[in-house]
Amino acid sequence: MAENIIFVGKLIHTPSLGTLEIEDATVGVHQSKIVFLAKSVTDETIHLAKSHHMLKNAKVQILKPSQFFFPGFIDTHIHAPQYPNAGFGIDVPLLKWLEKYTFPLESSFRNLDKALEIYYRIVTRTLAYGTTFASYFSSLHAPASALLAELCFLFGQRAYIGKCNMNTLSPPHYCEKSSESSIEATNVLVSFMSQLDPERKIVSPIVTPRFAPSCTKDLLQSCGKFAATHGLPIQTHVSENPGEIALVREMFPDRKSYTDVYDHYNLLTPKTILAHGVYLEDEEIETIYKRQSGISHCPTSNAVLASGMANVRKLLNAGVKVSLGTDVSGGYTPNMLVAIRQAALTSRSLASVLKDPRIILELPELLYLATQGGAEVLGRGREVGSFEEGKDWDALVIDVSSQNNSPIDIYEHDSWEHILSKWVFNGDDRNIAQVWVNGKLIAGTECKIEDISPVSLNLASLYMDTAISTEKKSLRLREILESFTKTKLLPVTQCVNDGKVHAKPWKHTDENEDYRKTNSVERKRFLRST
Amino acid sequence: MAENIIFVGKLIHTPSLGTLEIEDATVGVHQSKIVFLAKSVTDETIHLAKSHHMLKNAKVQILKPSQFFFPGFIDTHIHAPQYPNAGFGIDVPLLKWLEKYTFPLESSFRNLDKALEIYYRIVTRTLAYGTTFASYFSSLHAPASALLAELCFLFGQRAYIGKCNMNTLSPPHYCEKSSESSIEATNVLVSFMSQLDPERKIVSPIVTPRFAPSCTKDLLQSCGKFAATHGLPIQTHVSENPGEIALVREMFPDRKSYTDVYDHYNLLTPKTILAHGVYLEDEEIETIYKRQSGISHCPTSNAVLASGMANVRKLLNAGVKVSLGTDVSGGYTPNMLVAIRQAALTSRSLASVLKDPRIILELPELLYLATQGGAEVLGRGREVGSFEEGKDWDALVIDVSSQNNSPIDIYEHDSWEHILSKWVFNGDDRNIAQVWVNGKLIAGTECKIEDISPVSLNLASLYMDTAISTEKKSLRLREILESFTKTKLLPVTQCVNDGKVHAKPWKHTDENEDYRKTNSVERKRFLRST
Repeated sequence: MAENIIFVGKLIHTPSLGTLEIEDATVGVHQSKIVFLAKSVTDETIHLAKSHHMLKNAKVQILKPSQFFFPGFIDTHIHAPQYPNAGFGIDVPLLKWLEKYTFPLESSFRNLDKALEIYYRIVTRTLAYGTTFASYFSSLHAPASALLAELCFLFGQRAYIGKCNMNTLSPPHYCEKSSESSIEATNVLVSFMSQLDPERKIVSPIVTPRFAPSCTKDLLQSCGKFAATHGLPIQTHVSENPGEIALVREMFPDRKSYTDVYDHYNLLTPKTILAHGVYLEDEEIETIYKRQSGISHCPTSNAVLASGMANVRKLLNAGVKVSLGTDVSGGYTPNMLVAIRQAALTSRSLASVLKDPRIILELPELLYLATQGGAEVLGRGREVGSFEEGKDWDALVIDVSSQNNSPIDIYEHDSWEHILSKWVFNGDDRNIAQVWVNGKLIAGTECKIEDISPVSLNLASLYMDTAISTEKKSLRLREILESFTKTKLLPVTQCVNDGKVHAKPWKHTDENEDYRKTNSVERKRFLRST
Repeated sequence: MAENIIFVGKLIHTPSLGTLEIEDATVGVHQSKIVFLAKSVTDETIHLAKSHHMLKNAKVQILKPSQFFFPGFIDTHIHAPQYPNAGFGIDVPLLKWLEKYTFPLESSFRNLDKALEIYYRIVTRTLAYGTTFASYFSSLHAPASALLAELCFLFGQRAYIGKCNMNTLSPPHYCEKSSESSIEATNVLVSFMSQLDPERKIVSPIVTPRFAPSCTKDLLQSCGKFAATHGLPIQTHVSENPGEIALVREMFPDRKSYTDVYDHYNLLTPKTILAHGVYLEDEEIETIYKRQSGISHCPTSNAVLASGMANVRKLLNAGVKVSLGTDVSGGYTPNMLVAIRQAALTSRSLASVLKDPRIILELPELLYLATQGGAEVLGRGREVGSFEEGKDWDALVIDVSSQNNSPIDIYEHDSWEHILSKWVFNGDDRNIAQVWVNGKLIAGTECKIEDISPVSLNLASLYMDTAISTEKKSLRLREILESFTKTKLLPVTQCVNDGKVHAKPWKHTDENEDYRKTNSVERKRFLRST
């Protein structure tokens, strides 16, 4: 459990669309929650905080002049198993890309050694980039998805985790046998995660029909029903690419539109995340608005796959909730700052094409999409996304000084608006000094072992220790997991980048084996004994 | 003088448009030049290299398995004095942006303390990002431009340096009095640089009419004549933004097009660099092709300023030479990898808008634009840009290992094509282990003082030393410059980011003073006594 802390320093956030607040602030955090917030720093505010009944014996953390607080980034669309492909494979459009690069990689996640290696990397990478909450697509495998949930839980990263539901139009070795088996595997994951985090505070399952073309009507219906029964959020893709849209029209001739397919099967809820939405028609936008579902705008992926440029302004004007997703590996990086940049650039390029400068998304809007906007889309807007009393303390400490070989150069005449913009456009993980989730310090360049709360001490200290190689980290992570789960895990594949490019290969064996055979056995490996 | 070295390792380059070579290679470098190149590594190739008559006593450098050689990046359009604005100020289109952000900053470069501070930063930043050759726009001030030339020469970065010629439609405090005074100042710079580097091997002046709207007809004519007389390259802007194009049409009603303005005043030569070219019409493209002038494609800046998306494919199909520019601070970073990425994304977004996938620029083409394509546009394609016998050794050693907290994750199954692509999309300065220019090691994370040739030892070791603060570096740089120029420089303004954001402010004083008063006096400070 986190202790009581009074934070003092510059605070920057975007509590509503278009509103940018840059203020000195005194913030009192009791365990995980903000219980005191004064938008100034004086002897009086600090005295008031110290005398707050929930902040007894609070320690005071004062930021350096080069630092500021910012809400943690919320990545509403990221495919965790695709991380090894991030940065290559951009020679074909969406449907061919799935077939050539994505399905072969994802199908290999029946191998849990591989899953541990990849998921360890993606969770640590996203935390280093300041992602405090991610909505992950996993592969179709429940065991590997459970492993991802466990890693997020141990590291302390908030996550929605959904195994893909996909029982048609996928390669034979990477396709579920039936609607029933798909839901059964989903149920396995939900049961496991309910033991891991019964309150769904840090990790929650999310129902994940991959996209309409990979689901039979029966499966879509079952997904809608399952989500309703278990009160779960839903994530899927919509209207990303002209070829995909044509395919949906062909597969669902009775439905008015791509959006209407989901609506028909009760998949549009206030906790539904629809990724992309590049070519949505007015009627579809209206439906999404009515259902209070949200869009995950993925500008990098949309550009990389030549899908198109989404008109975010049109969605916002229609009242639709919009957020940002990195969409690894359609997007080449899990770095949310890059998603923000590309959203800026896409809106500006689209404005020049359509000769309408009103399309341009300004910095306060972009930052909102990456924080509070994400929280709203994930149905968690009252808990995280900005700083206010009663919200959880999910915060980054950004440092724009020249320490850590920072890629930003700040000059004396730079206003805080300028500094903020320089960080957004030129900053990277070297500027993320601290990453706080739910009142716990869990990552960042400044994070020291003695700062870490006991729960995540082993993992976080391991993560922060730059003196040991990634290979050794992977081995130590396995030891921690094994002591946690009180069971022997499979050996981790030694595919680690230790200064040499080549390590042991992954084995893509047993590709045609029915993954469900090993399902229940492997699942038990991850069940917590507590 | 650099010594003889035999380099052994993976070599990647794009010697012609669309050609990507990835080969093990043995490369013999005698002083600055490649005198031996075998595209394999065997006992025989190494023996052959060692017995080459120009490689007597050569030492052998063998790359690590995680490293490869790549040609140095060539940034064909970058505004050095605008660097402090990189990353902010994107709220207005081009012409307003010049007025609001750019001219006020550039005008302050009459202050040489400020110039030293900023130019030191931009040269070291671009070297860290692997830019071995840059075509810089300076401000309109000859003394500050001379200082930039001196810094590039001392650090060993190849550079074209042009003071801006601008005598109209600019603010009163940042506008030359006449065509004559503009050419006079240019002549001062050319004379100075001729002493610095008579062969124009490392640094060369470049005639720089800022853009048609900031030049009277008389000045454009004088620039064309001056360039011809002195055999100098030319750089300017063309067809960047609809508002700018309309302005040119209004100012030059006798000319057929924006391009025709330059052509009329003999400013289109085989050594002319035209930045942007977003809206060029077919006839203009034909003229540029006929004159063998080149385009600097600046995709980041074009997106940021909502200028538009240039159709590079159309230019290439017409036979026009194309290269890449970061266009700081229209572009937010001097990192050429970002220019490559944005060129990729822009071509893909444009392909989706125009429904023509042939527009897409593939990786080998993009890398060509950033290296050999740049060399061609700068008229130096026979000297640098790719690896072949007789060319100068301008090379990067890229390291994709996890050292230096690398932002790239490589997996065993990644082919070299994949590794290359991952570096392009996710790499940064942490992956640039060595930067070689003209046979000298001058920068990079692996660069050690003992590797440095005597000429640049002081500066390069200073640059590489991460143990001392930027402030101290700036002070030591001044000492080195003073000992080099044998004259006392003005004190360097202490606006340094040493962990605090705030240092001393720049003084924007004397804005209305005629800069020419101080011109000859300040120039003498930089004249080398040798």
